[in-house]
Amino acid sequence: MQTKEKPKLDEAEARRAFEGALASYDQDFGKFFLARLFGCGFEYKEDTCQVSFELKDFMLNPQGGLHGGVTAFVLDISMGHLLWKKSGPGTTLEIKVQYAKAARSGPLTATSRFIRHGRGISYLRSELVDDKGELIAFATSTWKSLSRH
Amino acid sequence: MQTKEKPKLDEAEARRAFEGALASYDQDFGKFFLARLFGCGFEYKEDTCQVSFELKDFMLNPQGGLHGGVTAFVLDISMGHLLWKKSGPGTTLEIKVQYAKAARSGPLTATSRFIRHGRGISYLRSELVDDKGELIAFATSTWKSLSRH
Amino acid sequence: MQTKEKPKLDEAEARRAFEGALASYDQDFGKFFLARLFGCGFEYKEDTCQVSFELKDFMLNPQGGLHGGVTAFVLDISMGHLLWKKSGPGTTLEIKVQYAKAARSGPLTATSRFIRHGRGISYLRSELVDDKGELIAFATSTWKSLSRH
Amino acid sequence: MQTKEKPKLDEAEARRAFEGALASYDQDFGKFFLARLFGCGFEYKEDTCQVSFELKDFMLNPQGGLHGGVTAFVLDISMGHLLWKKSGPGTTLEIKVQYAKAARSGPLTATSRFIRHGRGISYLRSELVDDKGELIAFATSTWKSLSRH
Repeated sequence: MQTKEKPKLDEAEARRAFEGALASYDQDFGKFFLARLFGCGFEYKEDTCQVSFELKDFMLNPQGGLHGGVTAFVLDISMGHLLWKKSGPGTTLEIKVQYAKAARSGPLTATSRFIRHGRGISYLRSELVDDKGELIAFATSTWKSLSRH
Repeated sequence: MQTKEKPKLDEAEARRAFEGALASYDQDFGKFFLARLFGCGFEYKEDTCQVSFELKDFMLNPQGGLHGGVTAFVLDISMGHLLWKKSGPGTTLEIKVQYAKAARSGPLTATSRFIRHGRGISYLRSELVDDKGELIAFATSTWKSLSRH
Repeated sequence: MQTKEKPKLDEAEARRAFEGALASYDQDFGKFFLARLFGCGFEYKEDTCQVSFELKDFMLNPQGGLHGGVTAFVLDISMGHLLWKKSGPGTTLEIKVQYAKAARSGPLTATSRFIRHGRGISYLRSELVDDKGELIAFATSTWKSLSRH
Repeated sequence: MQTKEKPKLDEAEARRAFEGALASYDQDFGKFFLARLFGCGFEYKEDTCQVSFELKDFMLNPQGGLHGGVTAFVLDISMGHLLWKKSGPGTTLEIKVQYAKAARSGPLTATSRFIRHGRGISYLRSELVDDKGELIAFATSTWKSLSRH
């Protein structure tokens, strides 16, 4: 009879991510707790926002790939932060994510762009790629800008 | 000159969630690390899967509502677990989430159902509601079943 | 050498649909030209809108099933008309359609419902079924209400 | 008492479109009846498919803009034809269309591209623009290739 060992996470790494997030978060754009927990770095250039992070094994799904929820999270913040940079805070009306390939390691980068920027409603898209430039996931979304008073 | 206090998280609560996840995870359906970190409980009845969790403030976005990425995560696993229960593991081809209302507290429950179950391709939907039954978000998704050898 | 006969449409039926549309259209809700061309009938009950039509072979795709564009069209108008009935005209921000089964004949009915009705933004869904109640397609959409002056 | 004149279509133009479609259709890619009715021209270059058509007023919605169902139809066929050109027929699993701007006149062109081409599952996107290059709508979709025997 076979007793299959369940895969174990690198718990020390998960702990470093957690303690690092607690030590560095600030509930604001670019630095809120979950963004820190997932180790997201932000870069803005030419009407794009790039969110980069290192895949760590506490982010995996039961099948050993990056969990789709984390993918959605990172794509979402890449778009939300670009909108915020351009015209202030907004709220996501909807997001769609298409999953192209399972990510299993390495640095990943989501790059967001506007499909259309409007005063009230904006559409954005974002691509998550691995370090070889291969597409992991593609997202589009609809946002409503919030007035800033 | 004004110095605005940034909102602080309940860090002890975040720490309990993290340590609890580390102590109880198993990289399998229902128990993988992120599901434990977000405190997800699973219940299956009559072709639905219910995923319940308590909103904790480490899950918030910079604007003080449940982060849309966490919403997407929970909706995703409610659908993935229902498919797995019915016919084994599958991979998400795509997911769309529509956000109805910001969630700020309390227990939240995602209930998933099949739109169509197929041998190869399945469609599912899921609703996230708060403890008053008010809709927080609605998702639909497309899955491809993986053969189980 | 084989010369395969291309399938021919019932051209008399297409002509009747066209002439009927020309004779009966009015560029208003429920009666605009394309709705007449596709033979759509509208029924409103208990916060739903039902759009029924008879599949005619001029609506087919090259593979002999109802064209997905016609499916999207009928689902779209079932949702737009329900919103219009409830709170006046609106504009579609986005629509997603999932295709469950090819429709090849018979009367088809799209039934729309609100996921959430709002003063500014509304979410709707709609299901297209055949005369056996089998699901042909499922749609969700996001609408922005237009003010009525 | 006010009697508001309803807008009238250019019925002669609608008739020319219909008769032209009947005279030239062939239920195959590029030439099926609905594609002919909407006057679609197809062009393939460098892994894109361009579908161009002239907006005619029988294609309008009750508010006087191009009907979203026609937009969805044209975006759908631009993607389906590109997939067919690349690797044979496929079936749409789902499509999402985001509407950027109402189109009221002129030639319109949908240009489709692959997000990811796969043997089984492919993702495509397509943009509909007017003759000034302004974006009318943006679509993404998921396709399953059908085997060719």
